[in-house]
Parts: sequence; structure tokens; C-alpha cells
Amino acid sequence: MSIQDTPPRPGRPPSLRDPQRAICDAAASLFAAKGYDGTSLQDVASAVGMTKAGLYHYFRNKQDLFDSIVLGVLSDMLESARARVDGVEGGAQQVAAFMAAHALYFEGNRDHYRAAFIGRGGDLYVFTPEQMQARRAYTDFLKDILEQGRAQGAFAFEDAPLVARGILGMLNWMTRWYNPQGEKSAEAIAGTYAQIVLKGIATD
Amino acid sequence: MSIQDTPPRPGRPPSLRDPQRAICDAAASLFAAKGYDGTSLQDVASAVGMTKAGLYHYFRNKQDLFDSIVLGVLSDMLESARARVDGVEGGAQQVAAFMAAHALYFEGNRDHYRAAFIGRGGDLYVFTPEQMQARRAYTDFLKDILEQGRAQGAFAFEDAPLVARGILGMLNWMTRWYNPQGEKSAEAIAGTYAQIVLKGIATD
Repeated sequence: MSIQDTPPRPGRPPSLRDPQRAICDAAASLFAAKGYDGTSLQDVASAVGMTKAGLYHYFRNKQDLFDSIVLGVLSDMLESARARVDGVEGGAQQVAAFMAAHALYFEGNRDHYRAAFIGRGGDLYVFTPEQMQARRAYTDFLKDILEQGRAQGAFAFEDAPLVARGILGMLNWMTRWYNPQGEKSAEAIAGTYAQIVLKGIATD
Repeated sequence: MSIQDTPPRPGRPPSLRDPQRAICDAAASLFAAKGYDGTSLQDVASAVGMTKAGLYHYFRNKQDLFDSIVLGVLSDMLESARARVDGVEGGAQQVAAFMAAHALYFEGNRDHYRAAFIGRGGDLYVFTPEQMQARRAYTDFLKDILEQGRAQGAFAFEDAPLVARGILGMLNWMTRWYNPQGEKSAEAIAGTYAQIVLKGIATD
């Protein structure tokens, strides 16, 4: 009997209530630490206390599992950015809200984020069309905020996509150096970067 | 007879004049494209027209070859940044010079740079002490420029290392999106980012 056939019971540990999520969480930790090539489906199955055969109820193969994590990260980041920016008035406040949302997502989902961003070495990983769309939607969301702020006279810059990528670079590069035990939270760091960038693109 | 035993001859192709460099160049292209795990020493040997046994005259194993590329990137970046900043007066001009040097290095050594930064997935890659020192020296060089500028009253910020990492993030993230056939050169993009950051940290 596979886990999929088992009806959820309130007394079971959370990891088995939502097996798909439990698998993604375990896989993300492994991909983040050991890389895609260094992680086997057997490693994932062992980590989540499932048989390898059980995994195949949820994911076709390792690639499918990795793809699903990357798409989840891209979609969730857009959702949390939208939720945080929604209702905020003014370009500067919106950029700051976007950057805070990015940092909070990173802080709260480090393994998923790191699996997606540094899990695979080299150029081998090619985004699926769905992932491409999600990534584009996320970058465009920030670009649109920047362009609206410029249209309202708050910002001065030539190339909104370039500015958006610079902002994302500052934030994404944190994967390489951020220490969760350090003095400053990811959100505080994003706040410092927001101040610098916002002053840097403010209309004189 | 190994290539190492062969005296260099002027008529030989450049790739064989300096075998160590030719090996690193070929390996960097492969690591950048296929990742560390996706590249074998045999791939490298074939790319450089050498036997695998010949490679062992120069590098102990794949790890040693990869380490050597990473250390080369870190050392060369510091050297080119120093060369460009040297003799430049004023914090803002020095930061701009540093950023231009970084972009020029990236543009001129894309495969080496990308091999070093995205060649290996996950956390498996641990810097050697020599690499740690080189990376630290590079970041410190930028941090020192920032702190000197602040001491001279040109800049206002609290945390120089944080600002340095933000600048490096903007630049390093270009590995993920920069298109060498695009409209703007890496140096021009770094120039735009320098303007934003310098205005962002300028004393009011």
C-alpha cells in the first residue's frame, strides 16, 4: 500500500499529512547541501521515510522533483511579493515592500531557495516553459513597479529591467554569504539595500 | 613522452605553448557549460588534444583542476581591480573603477568566471584556505575603498562589508542573465550600477 492510498489521519506526523510537500522539503534540503548530481531519489526517500517506489506516486523522476521545487520557489516568491506590495502606495514604498518580501521568502524557505538557485552546477539546467513564465512574471512585477514609479516622477533611470536585475542580484547573492545566525536578519539587510537603491534612483 | 617534456617551439599552436593554461581554459568552458559533475577529465583531455595521462602532469585530479581555476579567478580579479583602481583619486571614482574592472574581467573571462561561480551545485564545494584568503582579499579591497571614502566624508553608510556584498551581488548575478550579444557591454552595465550605488551611498 502506498502512502498515497493512505487516508490522512490527524494523529500522524505533519510530514506524512502532505507527502508531496514533505518530499519537496526533504529534497530541497538535499539539493541545497549536496547538489542535484550528489542527491539520489533513494536519499530523498530515506530522508522522508518513504520507499523509492512510494516517491514515484508523486514525481516521475529526480528531474521532475527538482523542476517542481524550482517552479514552487518562483511561484511562491511572486505570490508573497504581490501580497506584500498589494495596498502599498508609492513607488519607493512598493520597491521596499518587494525587497522585504524577497528577503522574508529567502529567510523562511532557505533550502528551497538555495536548491533552486544553486542546486545545479553549470548551464545544464534549462527552465521549463512554465518556470520561464514564472521567472519572467516575477522580474516583470518589479520592473512594473519601477516603471510606474518613474511615470509618477519618483524615480529617474533609463533601463528598468537593468535596475530590476541589479536589485535581484543584491538579494539573490545573499545565498552565497548570508548567515542565519548572524546579527542582521535577511529582511534588515534587504532594508539597507532598499535604502541605497531607492536613494540611488530617486529623482533629484 | 609527455607534453611537459616537450620544449616549447614557436611554431606550435598557442594552446600547446602553455599546456597548463590550455587545460584550464578547456576545463573552464566544460565546467561552465556542463557543471563539475557533468565534466570528466577525459572530456578535458579530449578538448585540449591531450591524453588523460598527460593531464596528470599538471593536475592531480578533477578537484585539483577545478580548485586551480577558482583560485585563478579570485587572484586575477583582485589583480585587475588593483591595476584599475591604482592611481585613481576619490572614493566614488575608485568604486566605479573597481566595478568596471570586475565587469571587464567577467566579460573577458566568462567561462573561467562562470565555472568558478556556478560550476558546482550545492554546498559541496568548500574553498581551500588559499581560495578563502583570495576571496577575502578581493572583498576587503572593495570594503577598504568604501571605508576610506566614508572617512573622507564622501560616503555615508553603516556597514561597509554589507555594501560591498551588495555591489558584488549586482555584478556577480550577471552570470545568470548577461548576454554577450546584447546591446550593453558588461562594463556599461557596471557603469549604470555604479551610478545608482554611488548616488545611493553619497553623503547628502
